[in-house]
Amino acid sequence: MSERPTVVRTHQRVQPDVVAALGAGGVATVSEAQGRTGLLLPRVRPIYSGAAIAGTAITVLCHPGDNLMLHLAVEFCRAGDVLVVAMTSENEDGLLGELLATSLRAHGVIAVVMDCGVRDVTQLREMGFPVWSRAVSAQGTSKSVAGSVNVPVVCAGQPVHPGDAIVADDDGVVCVPRETAAEVAARVGERVTREDAMRRRLASGELGADLYGLREVADRLGIDYTGEAAPA
Amino acid sequence: MSERPTVVRTHQRVQPDVVAALGAGGVATVSEAQGRTGLLLPRVRPIYSGAAIAGTAITVLCHPGDNLMLHLAVEFCRAGDVLVVAMTSENEDGLLGELLATSLRAHGVIAVVMDCGVRDVTQLREMGFPVWSRAVSAQGTSKSVAGSVNVPVVCAGQPVHPGDAIVADDDGVVCVPRETAAEVAARVGERVTREDAMRRRLASGELGADLYGLREVADRLGIDYTGEAAPA
Amino acid sequence: MSERPTVVRTHQRVQPDVVAALGAGGVATVSEAQGRTGLLLPRVRPIYSGAAIAGTAITVLCHPGDNLMLHLAVEFCRAGDVLVVAMTSENEDGLLGELLATSLRAHGVIAVVMDCGVRDVTQLREMGFPVWSRAVSAQGTSKSVAGSVNVPVVCAGQPVHPGDAIVADDDGVVCVPRETAAEVAARVGERVTREDAMRRRLASGELGADLYGLREVADRLGIDYTGEAAPA
Amino acid sequence: MSERPTVVRTHQRVQPDVVAALGAGGVATVSEAQGRTGLLLPRVRPIYSGAAIAGTAITVLCHPGDNLMLHLAVEFCRAGDVLVVAMTSENEDGLLGELLATSLRAHGVIAVVMDCGVRDVTQLREMGFPVWSRAVSAQGTSKSVAGSVNVPVVCAGQPVHPGDAIVADDDGVVCVPRETAAEVAARVGERVTREDAMRRRLASGELGADLYGLREVADRLGIDYTGEAAPA
Amino acid sequence: MSERPTVVRTHQRVQPDVVAALGAGGVATVSEAQGRTGLLLPRVRPIYSGAAIAGTAITVLCHPGDNLMLHLAVEFCRAGDVLVVAMTSENEDGLLGELLATSLRAHGVIAVVMDCGVRDVTQLREMGFPVWSRAVSAQGTSKSVAGSVNVPVVCAGQPVHPGDAIVADDDGVVCVPRETAAEVAARVGERVTREDAMRRRLASGELGADLYGLREVADRLGIDYTGEAAPA
Amino acid sequence: MSERPTVVRTHQRVQPDVVAALGAGGVATVSEAQGRTGLLLPRVRPIYSGAAIAGTAITVLCHPGDNLMLHLAVEFCRAGDVLVVAMTSENEDGLLGELLATSLRAHGVIAVVMDCGVRDVTQLREMGFPVWSRAVSAQGTSKSVAGSVNVPVVCAGQPVHPGDAIVADDDGVVCVPRETAAEVAARVGERVTREDAMRRRLASGELGADLYGLREVADRLGIDYTGEAAPA
Repeated sequence: MSERPTVVRTHQRVQPDVVAALGAGGVATVSEAQGRTGLLLPRVRPIYSGAAIAGTAITVLCHPGDNLMLHLAVEFCRAGDVLVVAMTSENEDGLLGELLATSLRAHGVIAVVMDCGVRDVTQLREMGFPVWSRAVSAQGTSKSVAGSVNVPVVCAGQPVHPGDAIVADDDGVVCVPRETAAEVAARVGERVTREDAMRRRLASGELGADLYGLREVADRLGIDYTGEAAPA
Repeated sequence: MSERPTVVRTHQRVQPDVVAALGAGGVATVSEAQGRTGLLLPRVRPIYSGAAIAGTAITVLCHPGDNLMLHLAVEFCRAGDVLVVAMTSENEDGLLGELLATSLRAHGVIAVVMDCGVRDVTQLREMGFPVWSRAVSAQGTSKSVAGSVNVPVVCAGQPVHPGDAIVADDDGVVCVPRETAAEVAARVGERVTREDAMRRRLASGELGADLYGLREVADRLGIDYTGEAAPA
Repeated sequence: MSERPTVVRTHQRVQPDVVAALGAGGVATVSEAQGRTGLLLPRVRPIYSGAAIAGTAITVLCHPGDNLMLHLAVEFCRAGDVLVVAMTSENEDGLLGELLATSLRAHGVIAVVMDCGVRDVTQLREMGFPVWSRAVSAQGTSKSVAGSVNVPVVCAGQPVHPGDAIVADDDGVVCVPRETAAEVAARVGERVTREDAMRRRLASGELGADLYGLREVADRLGIDYTGEAAPA
Repeated sequence: MSERPTVVRTHQRVQPDVVAALGAGGVATVSEAQGRTGLLLPRVRPIYSGAAIAGTAITVLCHPGDNLMLHLAVEFCRAGDVLVVAMTSENEDGLLGELLATSLRAHGVIAVVMDCGVRDVTQLREMGFPVWSRAVSAQGTSKSVAGSVNVPVVCAGQPVHPGDAIVADDDGVVCVPRETAAEVAARVGERVTREDAMRRRLASGELGADLYGLREVADRLGIDYTGEAAPA
Repeated sequence: MSERPTVVRTHQRVQPDVVAALGAGGVATVSEAQGRTGLLLPRVRPIYSGAAIAGTAITVLCHPGDNLMLHLAVEFCRAGDVLVVAMTSENEDGLLGELLATSLRAHGVIAVVMDCGVRDVTQLREMGFPVWSRAVSAQGTSKSVAGSVNVPVVCAGQPVHPGDAIVADDDGVVCVPRETAAEVAARVGERVTREDAMRRRLASGELGADLYGLREVADRLGIDYTGEAAPA
Repeated sequence: MSERPTVVRTHQRVQPDVVAALGAGGVATVSEAQGRTGLLLPRVRPIYSGAAIAGTAITVLCHPGDNLMLHLAVEFCRAGDVLVVAMTSENEDGLLGELLATSLRAHGVIAVVMDCGVRDVTQLREMGFPVWSRAVSAQGTSKSVAGSVNVPVVCAGQPVHPGDAIVADDDGVVCVPRETAAEVAARVGERVTREDAMRRRLASGELGADLYGLREVADRLGIDYTGEAAPA
């Protein structure tokens, strides 16, 4: 979105306790708690299952096939950051591998979310360094084309600003804007409580049709409950 | 396919012993045993590997981004059923999550097959509740648009009727029509026996070219066995 | 590419020690060592994670939905070979299953790379027989249409000649032409050494921006380091 | 769906006047008139714009990359028929070209709908022989693998039976089952009349929000009309 | 992005003369003039070739398979507006047809850009009402699910705010933010002049390698100009 | 495929009379005449219909999002050449626009085939400069990353060498290797004659089932001609 390649050195971040509260909810609950918004497209998947993180976004905007800006972003990372890599156009090359992950970890980064490819996934799994990406690809990249660091980006269909909270797990990735993060975190807590109660009732055999008032929805929509089985 | 939103309350199901016999064969063998038919498109994948089930279909037809009919379907489920979710158009939203799975399990459902997305996959794996879906997506849904329960549907390219047998494993999902299920189950057994014999011969180094009579096919097709290696 | 269906009986292979040296590097390093070339498209993925092989290519060119040529190829396989299956057009049917894998293993084949589908993946994992494919599909195939064995092919966008070295792991698949394999293997060794040194420096917090001389690249490209954070 | 390759020689067809009445409505109106059902997936597109046809289905089920069954189907075609080509698995090869189209036209076929590729599109446009397909591909095919003619098929996600009405235009393709075709045709006529009236009112500036009663829907859904413009 | 369904009644628009100046440049030139930014993903294509428009955005955010918000948006449209339809998740249903287009035209809308499907394309072409969409689909929709009007959206990967300038032609669609539109329009004019001069020089046979100074780039990159033709 | 960025200045080309003879056959016939080989993937489509060309390949290998090598290739082009643009990884950016086309035309190039995007398609159509591409995209590119000119490439799945014959029309693009071009051209002529005869017989109502001997194929395959129509 930025017109000129730009590196922004400083930005504000969601507070750690808010990040932790969001992380406790998980991706699906956080998304529900902010009105079913904030999700990256489902093409962005974890490279190994079971990873679950919450942190604050460092944004990077890269040219296809070029990871120059990832290298330039490292020095602006802090403990608890999540690198969010957006692309100026669709690309699946492996913009990040083990060496860059080692460098990011040394500067406090806990995970990477990329709308492109990643390589060295065996080593990343061994390191316990989680990555969410749209592809696994060993295709190496140039370090020759300008991009930006810590400007607003759109990553896998979702706007992300530097310092926003990022929650990621097996369900994918969700972004929570910095301005509303505390409020969303509060709603996440309420939601978890509500869902616990609901889970117990459903487990006992009560029907969602009754609990959610869906029978009257069916009535209003004119769903026909008198249908007979189709002949074979 | 149904013109008016309809819920059909009762239907016949493939007998449990037939279901079990089909399940013993697995997806690939069952498909071969019914003339290489019945498979859902390969985009429908298990959310964790190693799951293998066989059951009888409860069909649900949903509007994109809406899971009302899943909730309405629960009360018609019985032990051993598999919920089969078809869509009126292509959609990857997460129409099912942990709460709905808890409800389905409470009513006997052993697995879900969906031509859309699923969420809460970490929790579903912990529950041991297997789902085959075309995507993992935390995108929540409305409960506002009519659809149908237990009408004939096309799920991922495959016609499924209520009560049909559904077999699913790491290879995907196959549907066996109720009318021919017993016959197919019998052929599955014969096929497993034949394949065991074939496996031993192949393991000993015999060639499929000989065992399957493929040398004469090659002759008839005029395949040239006198070719020389291409120059580097 | 071959105009007439052809089976070539003999060809030269990359030497075993060279194959081993390439395998020690892994896919990403081998690709970098030969100028970021040789990779198959990232759609070709392993059926289970953690497998890593290196071997020499037996090439097969198949018609969509037909695996005749896989059966005819078996007798030309030797210990250490990797079957590389290319298609005359895009297809995801399951051209290989457990029985064919059993036969291939009996003739020394250590892995299969296919630009199509594979079935029986549970059994293949239990056998420890790794396959890289573009899909998992139980769709069975005919054995009726001519193709070729051991002619030059393009598999998932990558030219492969019989006898070329194939390296495959969680990152995908790379092909190293027979003529340059020894040279590439040497560069792989040097590269591993260099990367070990680099890893230590990056782990200690040194910046790639400095180590790779990227600050001057940023200068030359006119990247603006004076940007301010965007307003929320 | 058929377990054994089968050619069915005779079947009943929707009456010509009903076919004509459906054709007069066009694809979108016909689909609406049967409860928003019957559409083939939107990947099936016309090879040239402006074509619009209605006819009765001859169904063909083909193996990927093989057009044997198209040739065998010709003799069962009659004036006003539309050839509907379904595949046993996903494939984009060019199963039909100018010669086959010439043969089909000689036997009365007015159009072809195929869930695969077509070739010779320049010549087909010159002939005025419309085809709806998922791809244009010059890839030639074998004539070696069994399939079926005039069995029920699923073509691009839609069940089609022999003799069903097929309507196709720039919007795509819709199938109307033979049993309900007359009833749907009647509803098409009513719908066209209703839409003419609606068009006049909308053209005069009246709002659909009022005409369709959508303001109360908005109220029920709690849509907030008091929002202020977001800051730039 | 909006958490609660919202309709914003008023907003500011780019001035008509600025819109006209941007339109004179066309999509590719406008995108270059704002630093190669602003383009919607190339999947959004015109329904007929030769259309070229420039206007100001009315944004609509819809649920998949539901066009309620399009109907609610009409009353807020003015002469010169372009309706920009974003989706909460990926969907190709035909959210707009001839009737809705008639209504939009009656309220001054000159074109529609949609990250979903469109139907009645024959009629829209006859009306001369251009639409850019990701699919043509006759699939009808519900009018039951809440969304928003004139909130910031992401449409086909691109952020769009109400009142932004939208330019669309055979090359696709570009968005120019309201705040920078005048400045970009000025650069478009300069760029057109520069390109005219460049076109004349290139047409006379001068080389871009010389005119753009690319020989020194080739030198710096170490491109080898001494290569010999590969053996056949 | 080339390990080091390389520009090859000279190469041999297929003779003009052979190129003309291939062009007279068209894409589908040429492909058939060389054993159903040589086709680029069907994703490569003409930007306007009705164009048909035949020429000799200038090959270019580009990095995603970078068109430096197109500019460097121009000076090596001659009358009758076709620029064939391959990519090191999948990319849809618009690597070519009107200015570059003007330059190419000034150096004799008659068409461009690209496995990436193209922009300025309105102007290219007005110029009568045909392009076959995988996308239309106005996304501009850098001129910063090395690639190669006139080395062997794989373009859209098809190997192409400099000087090979390229035939392109509404059916797509086919490559004929230089070494076999004369022989293929001869077969094209024979094939056209044969197809003319066949067309007359099919137009008169004779059946391909008889003319191609397909009834015995049906017999051998055990196709059942005694099937009865399925019940509705």
